Amino acid sequence: MPPPTRHPVAELRDRFLQRLRESSTSREPRGLYEPISYIMGIGGKRVRPLLALIAARMFGDDEELTAGMPVALAVETFHNFTLLHDDIMDASPLRRGNPTVHEKWDVNTAILSGDLMLIQAYAHLCGAPDKRRTHDLLCTFNRIATGVCEGQQFDVDFELRSHVTIEEYLDMIELKTAVLLGGALEMGALSAGAGREDADHLYAFGRLTGLAFQLHDDLLDTFGDGKQTGKLTGNDIIRNKKTFLYIKTLESLDETQRGELVEWFSHSPEDPAPKVARVTELMRLRDIPRLVAELRDQFQKEAYAHLAAVNGDAAWKDALRQLTEELLSRDN
Amino acid sequence: MPPPTRHPVAELRDRFLQRLRESSTSREPRGLYEPISYIMGIGGKRVRPLLALIAARMFGDDEELTAGMPVALAVETFHNFTLLHDDIMDASPLRRGNPTVHEKWDVNTAILSGDLMLIQAYAHLCGAPDKRRTHDLLCTFNRIATGVCEGQQFDVDFELRSHVTIEEYLDMIELKTAVLLGGALEMGALSAGAGREDADHLYAFGRLTGLAFQLHDDLLDTFGDGKQTGKLTGNDIIRNKKTFLYIKTLESLDETQRGELVEWFSHSPEDPAPKVARVTELMRLRDIPRLVAELRDQFQKEAYAHLAAVNGDAAWKDALRQLTEELLSRDN
Repeated sequence: MPPPTRHPVAELRDRFLQRLRESSTSREPRGLYEPISYIMGIGGKRVRPLLALIAARMFGDDEELTAGMPVALAVETFHNFTLLHDDIMDASPLRRGNPTVHEKWDVNTAILSGDLMLIQAYAHLCGAPDKRRTHDLLCTFNRIATGVCEGQQFDVDFELRSHVTIEEYLDMIELKTAVLLGGALEMGALSAGAGREDADHLYAFGRLTGLAFQLHDDLLDTFGDGKQTGKLTGNDIIRNKKTFLYIKTLESLDETQRGELVEWFSHSPEDPAPKVARVTELMRLRDIPRLVAELRDQFQKEAYAHLAAVNGDAAWKDALRQLTEELLSRDN
Repeated sequence: MPPPTRHPVAELRDRFLQRLRESSTSREPRGLYEPISYIMGIGGKRVRPLLALIAARMFGDDEELTAGMPVALAVETFHNFTLLHDDIMDASPLRRGNPTVHEKWDVNTAILSGDLMLIQAYAHLCGAPDKRRTHDLLCTFNRIATGVCEGQQFDVDFELRSHVTIEEYLDMIELKTAVLLGGALEMGALSAGAGREDADHLYAFGRLTGLAFQLHDDLLDTFGDGKQTGKLTGNDIIRNKKTFLYIKTLESLDETQRGELVEWFSHSPEDPAPKVARVTELMRLRDIPRLVAELRDQFQKEAYAHLAAVNGDAAWKDALRQLTEELLSRDN
């Protein structure tokens, strides 16, 4: 009896991790390369490279992953570069439970290692086997990377602004998180020879799924079951984080209650329980959880319509749908 | 009577500056794009883009600079990105007489704007008209950019090390400054359709000229005429900077005098005059200025041999030689 077949996505993840280990160098100067191996090695779900690899498998005959792997490495390296530099800007001590690079080394090391990671992301694109596609891959990568930087800046700007519209907020999370998910799929498809139309549909699928993820995360943070998510319920409220839920609630409240919500978000009481309870109540009063869940489902429905329009291998389209559903259902 | 013809290199500089002004955007978010316009606008000699443009003009028919200009913008944007991030790491308050970005805005702004500049450098490469050359340009750019980051890290490492060999020091300045000069020429040539051999000769010319520049700068700092250079003579000695001169002197002194030199470089007396006088004397004692000038001239001679081997337009090869001589003779 043959051994049971591994799940194809799990198989891709294993092969990506294998390739990642092989690509890790211990070159000189070590002070530059060690922090890169460190941050690339401390895990994460590897969602972006998986999206790239699945998209590449959808088109043509990329069983060896020669087309998709360079793009997968590029997007994962880029993603980790953004984490490294964002952690400096946010002065975060921990990343995935480990000390951040600027804590374990120092800020200058984190700046320079991050810079080299951005260059390495581009260097991976040079590893794509079909040189005729380099131009398209490079231009796409630039568009995505520019968007991510703009999203980060909008996020910083919004923290300091008293009023942010729901459209502005959605634009920000689209740039900050959704375009890279879309870009991973688009570039994976392009690397394997997909046409522009299919690549665009996959980009749209990734972008809309990214927006759905973000709303799902916001909902879980405030209304999820802490025992299942393993996180403190109401953490965003405690940290006065202006999430989609907060902005949507603010927009729908009358003036008095709007003043009350703004007041709650202007300080951090020692015992946060009454604040969490009252803010949650205000959100429920305006039926916000249902509204947000509906919007999330609407995004995901539109995403699936784009996926359905892709002329790619049906089994890999299913794999992509499965991966998405896993991510949307998981409570962590 | 026709107006007198402008010097062709001055003409290229004007056209580059014109194009740079046109490419400056005032996009949202302004907190991200304004610092970029600021640093790109505060001058500098624009040596690297000129090298790219001259190299492109050497091959084929690039009168409109359509091939060379994207590369010129890419190398200048990259160079300014390195200045922006280096200034954070060195905590420098001024750049070209103006406040640095992290002083005028803040460190986070300087990190993120710098990141976007690195992406913009790559984006300029996408503007090159012949898509078949994108692959070569991208791989070359990655090699150069990686070298520059490695050079910066070696420089940081050497500051903390008690002993650095002359070979290690030369490798460091090659990476930190010379490879980008070579790369600008190599990429300018490739963009205009030059073959690999000509591009390699131009790279070697730029790399060796860069090394010659660096030794020239070191010499001027310590032995130049302050009235002509407009700089404080002996500034490197006052700042305990481990230049080529210092390392070469250290290597050639006997043990007693080596101890004396190390001692001088271990503190910063209030009146630096006796220190500058004695260290300069030690250097002269070992005939270091002559040795360094000879090495500089040797590098430049080898550089010209590579230039002579290039199968490019003779008038533009002359222009390149003139630009080099101007830079090597100028006392600032």
